[in-house]
Amino acid sequence: MPAISNKGKSMPESPIRKLVPYAEAAKKRGTKVYHLNIGQPDIKTPKVALDAIKNNTVEVLEYSRSEGSETYRQKIASYYQKKHINVSATDIIVTTGGSEALLFALGTIADVSDEIIIPEPFYANYNGFATASGVKVVPVISKIDDNFALPPIEEFEKLITPKTKAILICNPGNPTGYLYSKEEINKLAEIVKKHDLFLISDEVYREFAYEGAKHVSIMEDESLAEHAIMIDSVSKRYSMCGARIGYIVSKNKQVISTALKFAQARLSPPTYAQIASEAALETPQSYFDEVIHEYVDRRNTLVAELEKIDGVKVAKPRGAFYCIVELPVKNADDFAQWLLEKFEYNGETVMVAPAAGFYSTPGIGLNQVRIAYVLKKEDLIKSVNIIKEALKQYNN
Amino acid sequence: MPAISNKGKSMPESPIRKLVPYAEAAKKRGTKVYHLNIGQPDIKTPKVALDAIKNNTVEVLEYSRSEGSETYRQKIASYYQKKHINVSATDIIVTTGGSEALLFALGTIADVSDEIIIPEPFYANYNGFATASGVKVVPVISKIDDNFALPPIEEFEKLITPKTKAILICNPGNPTGYLYSKEEINKLAEIVKKHDLFLISDEVYREFAYEGAKHVSIMEDESLAEHAIMIDSVSKRYSMCGARIGYIVSKNKQVISTALKFAQARLSPPTYAQIASEAALETPQSYFDEVIHEYVDRRNTLVAELEKIDGVKVAKPRGAFYCIVELPVKNADDFAQWLLEKFEYNGETVMVAPAAGFYSTPGIGLNQVRIAYVLKKEDLIKSVNIIKEALKQYNN
Repeated sequence: MPAISNKGKSMPESPIRKLVPYAEAAKKRGTKVYHLNIGQPDIKTPKVALDAIKNNTVEVLEYSRSEGSETYRQKIASYYQKKHINVSATDIIVTTGGSEALLFALGTIADVSDEIIIPEPFYANYNGFATASGVKVVPVISKIDDNFALPPIEEFEKLITPKTKAILICNPGNPTGYLYSKEEINKLAEIVKKHDLFLISDEVYREFAYEGAKHVSIMEDESLAEHAIMIDSVSKRYSMCGARIGYIVSKNKQVISTALKFAQARLSPPTYAQIASEAALETPQSYFDEVIHEYVDRRNTLVAELEKIDGVKVAKPRGAFYCIVELPVKNADDFAQWLLEKFEYNGETVMVAPAAGFYSTPGIGLNQVRIAYVLKKEDLIKSVNIIKEALKQYNN
Repeated sequence: MPAISNKGKSMPESPIRKLVPYAEAAKKRGTKVYHLNIGQPDIKTPKVALDAIKNNTVEVLEYSRSEGSETYRQKIASYYQKKHINVSATDIIVTTGGSEALLFALGTIADVSDEIIIPEPFYANYNGFATASGVKVVPVISKIDDNFALPPIEEFEKLITPKTKAILICNPGNPTGYLYSKEEINKLAEIVKKHDLFLISDEVYREFAYEGAKHVSIMEDESLAEHAIMIDSVSKRYSMCGARIGYIVSKNKQVISTALKFAQARLSPPTYAQIASEAALETPQSYFDEVIHEYVDRRNTLVAELEKIDGVKVAKPRGAFYCIVELPVKNADDFAQWLLEKFEYNGETVMVAPAAGFYSTPGIGLNQVRIAYVLKKEDLIKSVNIIKEALKQYNN
């Protein structure tokens, strides 16, 4: 039998999905499972986007341009301009989700065995994209005790080698919910300029900033024009995860012209999804106000309920819709599996994502889980109660 | 300014798209351009697929499963079973176009600097996917004089090294239109079994086999189960290029479980496109009969018209909707650009794809172009007449 590649063998399994068979078995036994493990919101997609699809007049479902349709890219540029980000359509390539934008970014700036520095814990699929691209992830540990703020910039400096090509951040952070301050972004700007690196910022949760905090984009700093590569996506903003539409945005012409070659090889992003996403840009502000209000409410509920449990520590999120929770267990991986395999409380249980998979350094985050607050308040309250009861039983 | 990667620099430009700026300039001058350069059919998408989208009831546009929805994969398996290909849903991963299926296949079986043998001329984007994956394309030259039949199997044998992981064919061929015979597939089966290689077959044009010829899939040969990886797509079959739905199909469990890790990293294929593609499987046979009739008619017209021109040689296609044409010019690249930049005939001109970009060996195919017969008969007749008049003027 011919052999699988080493790359294929070393592709990481998704820490979010590896418990899926246990969840399915639990459901088969009749246990209700609350899914706090994945960032699939229950929020309705804006009507304007759904209607655009229902009323579409396509007769031949053609390829679009590889970089995305012209009108859509112009409207995306207008969206950014309203957010004080001065980009034009030519600075944007529409991709198949933020995932493809990241893959194109890595291919554009890094060769095999080049290094990308990422504060950890980080979005687990960065590992997958890095492995697929042959790029090495170099983690800098951020800590639950300061809510996963940017680690001291000297920690980054120590890790920079001739192979370092970029620093990658997620802002606001998945899985941390941390929102970088202007000062933190400035520090990153200084270091990438000093060492002539790229700064890649995954800003797919940019609209989800709470308590009146302003999201600071790396694209706002004109002095970063040649260094900054923004990753964006419609998935969370409009609860359109299944559209698979994202963008890579950069003022660096070489970055865009190179990423375009990757885009041309795969022909085009999906056409229907572009129609829906273009329409979604017309979503009224009231939709976002309601959604943000809902998430703040959920977050407050989740954090308050969790903090009632002895031995639980929560990094209070100020953006996105995740938080990292430290549990009074030795191995959260085992606990998460046990929740699905052995436990139920009034016929219900909870699925969480063990946090170790969000770290690159082995042996860290073993007692942490990521919770996505993508369910309604009552379900979050029930879920936390289940965790509370489960911890009692598990620790006996 | 931070540097672009070597990978990015060496990503090939699409030979189909590099003349686009000249075509756009011609249109701005008021010249009508017939597009024979790209495989974007003018055929209408089946009504059953368009209607499924218009009538969809999605309220939250969610991620699908990474491997594609269960019902869709089961229906795809039924489609194959009707074609005497014995696969089940678990042998199939739904991808974002055939493009992503190829990328996953390369990542699954080949590491950096591993080699894939491909008969040339071949679909130009194979170069892009190989470069993105760090894999080396090793070409075997097939010839216009025998309609681009499979080169002698000894030519493949000569090129096999310890780094060779697979032979990749496109059947029927883009850009050649060649349809491999049962004997040719058997020869490939023997050699991959002998050397323990994978055989990847890009069968996206499988329904486009003419003159009653039967398409022979590598999946029909049970003895190839561990070696065969089929790439497929809805793009051409249902004129749904913009859906971006394809599949990777293999009976080799390791191949599927490894490709699934790549699929999980990018979360899921597009949801709307899966709805349309699932519905497209209900397309009545009459649709295909009409489409095939139309393509045969176009092909016959195109070949007959081209053969009337002095010094033109055509490889008669028996499948897909492309043909390679040898022109009485030294440099078809220059001629194709000249057609758009300097020539018009009654206010009209033609865009063709210079064939050199479909070869990996430098200096071959310089006097050839690829013509896609994706326009209606009258336009093909006009287009060939334009080429005839252009050749007279160009060669003076």
